Amino acid sequence: MAAPVENPDQLVTSSNPDHPANLIPSLCAKFWTLGWVTGTGGGCSIRDDNLVYIAPSGVQKELMKPADIYVLSLKDQEPSLKERTYLRSPPSYKPSQCTPLFLAAFTRRGAGCCIHTHSHWAVLVTLLLEARGQGSPASKVFEINNIEQIKGFGKGMGKVGNLGYHDTLRIPVIENTPHEEDLTEFLEAAMEEYPDAYAVLVRRHGVYVWGDNVHKAKTQCESLDYLFQLAVEMHQLGLPWISDIPQIAPQRS
Amino acid sequence: MAAPVENPDQLVTSSNPDHPANLIPSLCAKFWTLGWVTGTGGGCSIRDDNLVYIAPSGVQKELMKPADIYVLSLKDQEPSLKERTYLRSPPSYKPSQCTPLFLAAFTRRGAGCCIHTHSHWAVLVTLLLEARGQGSPASKVFEINNIEQIKGFGKGMGKVGNLGYHDTLRIPVIENTPHEEDLTEFLEAAMEEYPDAYAVLVRRHGVYVWGDNVHKAKTQCESLDYLFQLAVEMHQLGLPWISDIPQIAPQRS
Amino acid sequence: MAAPVENPDQLVTSSNPDHPANLIPSLCAKFWTLGWVTGTGGGCSIRDDNLVYIAPSGVQKELMKPADIYVLSLKDQEPSLKERTYLRSPPSYKPSQCTPLFLAAFTRRGAGCCIHTHSHWAVLVTLLLEARGQGSPASKVFEINNIEQIKGFGKGMGKVGNLGYHDTLRIPVIENTPHEEDLTEFLEAAMEEYPDAYAVLVRRHGVYVWGDNVHKAKTQCESLDYLFQLAVEMHQLGLPWISDIPQIAPQRS
Amino acid sequence: MAAPVENPDQLVTSSNPDHPANLIPSLCAKFWTLGWVTGTGGGCSIRDDNLVYIAPSGVQKELMKPADIYVLSLKDQEPSLKERTYLRSPPSYKPSQCTPLFLAAFTRRGAGCCIHTHSHWAVLVTLLLEARGQGSPASKVFEINNIEQIKGFGKGMGKVGNLGYHDTLRIPVIENTPHEEDLTEFLEAAMEEYPDAYAVLVRRHGVYVWGDNVHKAKTQCESLDYLFQLAVEMHQLGLPWISDIPQIAPQRS
Repeated sequence: MAAPVENPDQLVTSSNPDHPANLIPSLCAKFWTLGWVTGTGGGCSIRDDNLVYIAPSGVQKELMKPADIYVLSLKDQEPSLKERTYLRSPPSYKPSQCTPLFLAAFTRRGAGCCIHTHSHWAVLVTLLLEARGQGSPASKVFEINNIEQIKGFGKGMGKVGNLGYHDTLRIPVIENTPHEEDLTEFLEAAMEEYPDAYAVLVRRHGVYVWGDNVHKAKTQCESLDYLFQLAVEMHQLGLPWISDIPQIAPQRS
Repeated sequence: MAAPVENPDQLVTSSNPDHPANLIPSLCAKFWTLGWVTGTGGGCSIRDDNLVYIAPSGVQKELMKPADIYVLSLKDQEPSLKERTYLRSPPSYKPSQCTPLFLAAFTRRGAGCCIHTHSHWAVLVTLLLEARGQGSPASKVFEINNIEQIKGFGKGMGKVGNLGYHDTLRIPVIENTPHEEDLTEFLEAAMEEYPDAYAVLVRRHGVYVWGDNVHKAKTQCESLDYLFQLAVEMHQLGLPWISDIPQIAPQRS
Repeated sequence: MAAPVENPDQLVTSSNPDHPANLIPSLCAKFWTLGWVTGTGGGCSIRDDNLVYIAPSGVQKELMKPADIYVLSLKDQEPSLKERTYLRSPPSYKPSQCTPLFLAAFTRRGAGCCIHTHSHWAVLVTLLLEARGQGSPASKVFEINNIEQIKGFGKGMGKVGNLGYHDTLRIPVIENTPHEEDLTEFLEAAMEEYPDAYAVLVRRHGVYVWGDNVHKAKTQCESLDYLFQLAVEMHQLGLPWISDIPQIAPQRS
Repeated sequence: MAAPVENPDQLVTSSNPDHPANLIPSLCAKFWTLGWVTGTGGGCSIRDDNLVYIAPSGVQKELMKPADIYVLSLKDQEPSLKERTYLRSPPSYKPSQCTPLFLAAFTRRGAGCCIHTHSHWAVLVTLLLEARGQGSPASKVFEINNIEQIKGFGKGMGKVGNLGYHDTLRIPVIENTPHEEDLTEFLEAAMEEYPDAYAVLVRRHGVYVWGDNVHKAKTQCESLDYLFQLAVEMHQLGLPWISDIPQIAPQRS
């Protein structure tokens, strides 16, 4: 268990705009304009070595301040813990129910940042998959290939480089639970089954996306939302998500 | 009747950004960017104890200033009053026709804030319901369940906690009237019939949303607009608003 | 013909944000964010008594400055004039081809402000009407009723008050011409045929909207774009623009 | 080969907001809000005489700074070069894979600015064309006519004036390749086949748009995105992109 910190507010006080306590509010304000964290939904967490910074529960995301941020130590944290000790707690908030899900990305994937959105493009994709048959295998994974933006994703934890244009991006879908923290075991199971995925969709709820650092998590989250929007529009236009496109070789030497 | 105030402009003069006279303009500017208060439509009112602050009629909502705000006392106010005494009136505006509807939320629900939008998602939802049969019971209530964002709503006045993921959110729909103040009796009747609802849709017009305080009213208004947009898109994709999703129990102890 | 002005730059120099030379740039920047003046299309003109201020041709609308504004005197100006004398011309621009159309709104309607947008909602509405039969009467006027936002429009020049909820808003549609100034005679003919309209749609092009002053022109332009968007979405959902909705009378005394 | 520059950072240091090193970041921030450069995709390059300024690879486009810009000399540059010498390289980035494509616009078209977007409207247009038959002639060019915004495009390199309302805008489509630089030869071939086009679509990827200067490239890119969006919406509404509209002559003398 983490030892108490003498001056906890120092943990969220910095003049550096790239300090996690400053970055989380500025990222969340941006996400609000994108419709990802409407109505206090969604959230964002950043890990700096063993320190984890988390937006609180139920805050207007475009109005968040560094003083609103929770800080905890990753040491001895199990995602499944029911009681958690925080190095720093803001006075008037409750911890986010997303905490164990963020921790799963940090502990099982070594992620440096995890973003959770309620983007309605994500929700619509899960609904379109569900319409293929509730509980069917086809409903449990989003697949798309032959779109340039797929290159925005890494090949997987510990692998070098990014996916290619012709590769198929696969994002598993888990079913939603009444209590958000109960998603953790299913998120972890999906991580097991899809070791290379940097995101997990939650049916009728949204998506969790992570990355090695803030830059990569944000890039992957933006790329994924772009692909979800494209997928919904392709569906409306009768265009399939998976296609067979011949590879073109450059002709000059 | 409220006694005259000596210096009425003091009622709307404060350096505190959370003072209602500052909050209403900043909220309305934000609502304008969301397309909720286009063309001077819609509005917002905040109650602070017995003082009620209201945006005036016919103002460009993204340009409003604290000096534009009306103030009245809730004491002895009946929503149905034809003549109203204002503690403070801006020089060049008319009172909002929404006033009795805002007052209904304050007096009958103890709300601290009420938001009225012309969001076209709200209007489209009322049109889709009307298409089920003008005047039919099915046309008179919007229902959706099994969407995470439903958790953004309280269970109802005086009840503890929020709706759950599997709960059905019900928003009654009233028919529009030629004069906005004539909506009041129908709004009050809908409040009677749906005591737990925090919002009433107005057919071909928009929505009234309230909450115990500004934070809750804004959260519920954003969540509702999110759900209306999702509902329209679900309809376009042939997906039903009400579904039968099995509840998932967490498996670990 | 207007006498030469001694210091023309004074005409566009003011510290008052509501001066037309300051308002046109701030309005156009706002219109750019709404997608109304994409790619230097569209424009805006304000009349202050006999002085007319016009945005130049081919300028990035979100970057416009007061120094970019043309000024001319309304005296002795005929919309159909081929040669025009400007009281003030910016150094590196050409006059807008919309000039005679703006002047038509000022001279024939006494308007104080005229806005021209290329909003794709306006264009789509003209395309949907065209699909009813190229050249047919049904293709030549946009009609919608029983939508609250219709109240955003005045009843017509010289008439008191605004349209009601049950009234039908009618916006004539003229065919586009290769040269924008050639639209003038058709715009004027549409004004004759629809004396109460505050706007004219131009097929496959956009819309001209005016009002007694900047406030009313902007309110009507926003309300119209809202209605155009709603109309396109209603069409996609199979909902008619004209409906027969029974009027509801208030029941309490 | 370009001689080494004594103080390379001077190349990107200027207090003039119109300096390419300042313009590229401000343009890219604007493009990000338009959804054109989501997830570090897309980019922008400006040529000032023989100096070429290029945004780096993999940067968050709305956060770019002048210090992030690459500079190279156009002299002796062949788009097909595998090794390139930069006059100035930012410390922590990699050169953009778009570099040879930007250079093709500069060397073969004398362009002053080239913009690459991943706009999903562009991608959807290429998908709709592909659905006409993979590899078919109809899938290899986007054509639209009789829309006012077409006037936003020049008639072609070395030609005076812009396209007219009735003219057909033609944008060739090339197939995507696994490596972006391999697009260069196909882009150049499309330039050969469509000498008057200021843009080339890349299937399932996005669009390259250029212009004689920044102003024209931006105007053409905005106009094109507007037309792509309109085209997708027209398709959804069952409206054809190519129509036969009679030309209207002005009737007054």
